Amino acid sequence: MRIISVRLDDYKKKLSELLQHRVEESMAEIDEVVENVILNIQKDGDKALIEYTQKFDGVLLDKIQVEEGEINAAWEAVSDEFKEILDKARKNIWSYHEKQRQNSWMDFDGEIILGQKVTPIESVGMYVPGGKAAYPSTVLMNGIPAKIAGVERLVMVTPPGKDGKVNPYILAAAKLTGVDEIYKVGGAQSIAALAFGTETILPVNKIVGPGNIYVARAKKKVFGVVDIDMIAGPSEICILADESARPAYIAADLLSQAEHDEMASSILITQSYSLAEKVKLALEDQIASLDRVQIIRKAIEKNSAVYVPEDVETAVAMINDIAPEHLEVMTVNPFEILPKIKNAGAIFLGHFSPEPLGDYFAGPNHTLPTNGTAKFSSPLGVEDFVKKSSVIYYSKTALSQVKDEIESFALHEGLTAHANSIKVRFLP
Amino acid sequence: MRIISVRLDDYKKKLSELLQHRVEESMAEIDEVVENVILNIQKDGDKALIEYTQKFDGVLLDKIQVEEGEINAAWEAVSDEFKEILDKARKNIWSYHEKQRQNSWMDFDGEIILGQKVTPIESVGMYVPGGKAAYPSTVLMNGIPAKIAGVERLVMVTPPGKDGKVNPYILAAAKLTGVDEIYKVGGAQSIAALAFGTETILPVNKIVGPGNIYVARAKKKVFGVVDIDMIAGPSEICILADESARPAYIAADLLSQAEHDEMASSILITQSYSLAEKVKLALEDQIASLDRVQIIRKAIEKNSAVYVPEDVETAVAMINDIAPEHLEVMTVNPFEILPKIKNAGAIFLGHFSPEPLGDYFAGPNHTLPTNGTAKFSSPLGVEDFVKKSSVIYYSKTALSQVKDEIESFALHEGLTAHANSIKVRFLP
Repeated sequence: MRIISVRLDDYKKKLSELLQHRVEESMAEIDEVVENVILNIQKDGDKALIEYTQKFDGVLLDKIQVEEGEINAAWEAVSDEFKEILDKARKNIWSYHEKQRQNSWMDFDGEIILGQKVTPIESVGMYVPGGKAAYPSTVLMNGIPAKIAGVERLVMVTPPGKDGKVNPYILAAAKLTGVDEIYKVGGAQSIAALAFGTETILPVNKIVGPGNIYVARAKKKVFGVVDIDMIAGPSEICILADESARPAYIAADLLSQAEHDEMASSILITQSYSLAEKVKLALEDQIASLDRVQIIRKAIEKNSAVYVPEDVETAVAMINDIAPEHLEVMTVNPFEILPKIKNAGAIFLGHFSPEPLGDYFAGPNHTLPTNGTAKFSSPLGVEDFVKKSSVIYYSKTALSQVKDEIESFALHEGLTAHANSIKVRFLP
Repeated sequence: MRIISVRLDDYKKKLSELLQHRVEESMAEIDEVVENVILNIQKDGDKALIEYTQKFDGVLLDKIQVEEGEINAAWEAVSDEFKEILDKARKNIWSYHEKQRQNSWMDFDGEIILGQKVTPIESVGMYVPGGKAAYPSTVLMNGIPAKIAGVERLVMVTPPGKDGKVNPYILAAAKLTGVDEIYKVGGAQSIAALAFGTETILPVNKIVGPGNIYVARAKKKVFGVVDIDMIAGPSEICILADESARPAYIAADLLSQAEHDEMASSILITQSYSLAEKVKLALEDQIASLDRVQIIRKAIEKNSAVYVPEDVETAVAMINDIAPEHLEVMTVNPFEILPKIKNAGAIFLGHFSPEPLGDYFAGPNHTLPTNGTAKFSSPLGVEDFVKKSSVIYYSKTALSQVKDEIESFALHEGLTAHANSIKVRFLP
């Protein structure tokens, strides 16, 4: 892990040297595959879904839908202890997201009523990866805000294992979340099925959830026909620390991010060289005991660094420029930094708020804007599952008081039919 | 204008016969042009901007930025009367959107603090079309929510006329709105400049505003580097009316939508054949007095219809299936319909709330989801100009109470470095 000193006038250059190679490569070949899959699902529906599942997941399904029996068997197969943990996490996630609920409102002024009606999106599809990246937390984090929003039809798709079954943790989490329909299909074919529908799967209005590059490109392709959540890019943790921080904690948290992906980036920002050196040692201490050593080493060597800024101003400017998915502030008084943070997905304050606390348990969503998109995007939340309509009521009197202004405005824009729509209401 | 009777079991088919041809054609040629423009702006910056402006707008600029002098001259050139109208509209739009402001919040539970920090997007670019579609209302509707959100740098781009100047109404509206920087460039080249920056124009985090197909495709292309608002498709008005409605009002409102675009769709839904016939006559009566007769006739003939549903249930199902950009409810008691409306951009209630009232003056935004996307999208609003960060603080005691659950959850997902980040904090 490199240690790099930075000043206010050179941090941008030094950051981009680290991060600029993490950009999207050409997707032409993948896009061709994805477009073909989408066309075939549109043409052949369930038949194509079953064929692709045989080809990509190596299993010939007779039924696409996961039936009650399989869900109940999965529920029985999961230990009571883990079901309790899942349920505690569910409660925390529910309680946090409930505070994001927005109300419809109305406002009255004389004979005018203006308002905003908040309505749940009617149907939502949720992609949950299979295999090694089959995480029950994905189900909770994507499904719970949809349920709180009031989505009527929450549909989960997830690829089956070679035995034709869905990972039992995923099914247990889906049962706890209250998912309405589950289909054992994955990949671009499942995204096409959700967007356009097949004989078995009715189309949805929005698709959320993480997936591999085929899933991501398929989501981008069907965007417009349906809405999608963000497309996840390489993710980051950025830790701001002073000498009050324990090197072992910092090292552990940097490693927890690095474990996800070789492209993940773990960045420490500290004004203390001595802390930087100690963290390097702690990293080596801890890394040996972990499972995903190769992934971690690549992420740490290629995409990670310790930056030593000359002052707090530079440190804060760096954070806002990185716009990290996860920011940890391990300083004596982390709350004094909070107002300065403009761009970050989730902000973890203090020495006992490590990122994995947020991944599973604390309540806030773990679906966060990655790769600098926290400059303009938010964590997944209840508002991603509702949409608004403006509401406008004017009485005749109210309209008569502004009719001349509206007509004049319309005529200044050259739109005579717009002016006519006002005029016709006040003809003698 | 066709009159088509529908039942609950056949309305979907009959609607799609009307609307299905309004789909996106192949964009391959346009996309090639757009990609080239974007590459050249990234390579040559201002030089390429000036060249494209000469090529597409027919004017050789010496300065890209609109200077104070030109803005003030435009302000003087606009009549006091129209400036007053603009200012009244500004106040109404401001007052409505102010109610959309969201606060950051924090929540306390023992030694746990959870919250959500709301932060303005730092810089936003706003595209305003030039030429015939140069509307001052575009400036107000896109700019005011950004200002209310607290965007620090609101940048407007708009193509110059052949005289090298910007439409004075546009500049007057920009001055009233408080736009921070104005550049006289348009087309895909201006979108590329906003996304990637040039010597003169610093890059922004988000781009909003309507434009022609080149602008729309360029926005889609740079999406991800920056955020964008929705991509507008063909737009609609849908009017639900009973015999309490005046045929002349309905006809005028259908025409006001048709005036925008040949692809616009004006749909009347009424259970009364007699009203349908009267509206047809009223359309012919009024159409002759309008300016854009050709556009209107095409929109009315190709994409418009009167539907006569067998019951209210069918009428409401149709509206929610169309998910119209604009819905007018002209019935005896329009508020009794309101709870049933799930999908619509803006809902206009009663006989004196015509759509043009919302286009300019009432306050709600006129940038609305089109082409059925109201099923999952909202009107442009203040929340499009902010983003959120989750905030998480646990004390040592609070973390110690849940450490076993989090470790167990991480291990169930096979992520040992995640478990380690908790464990390391409680080593003896």
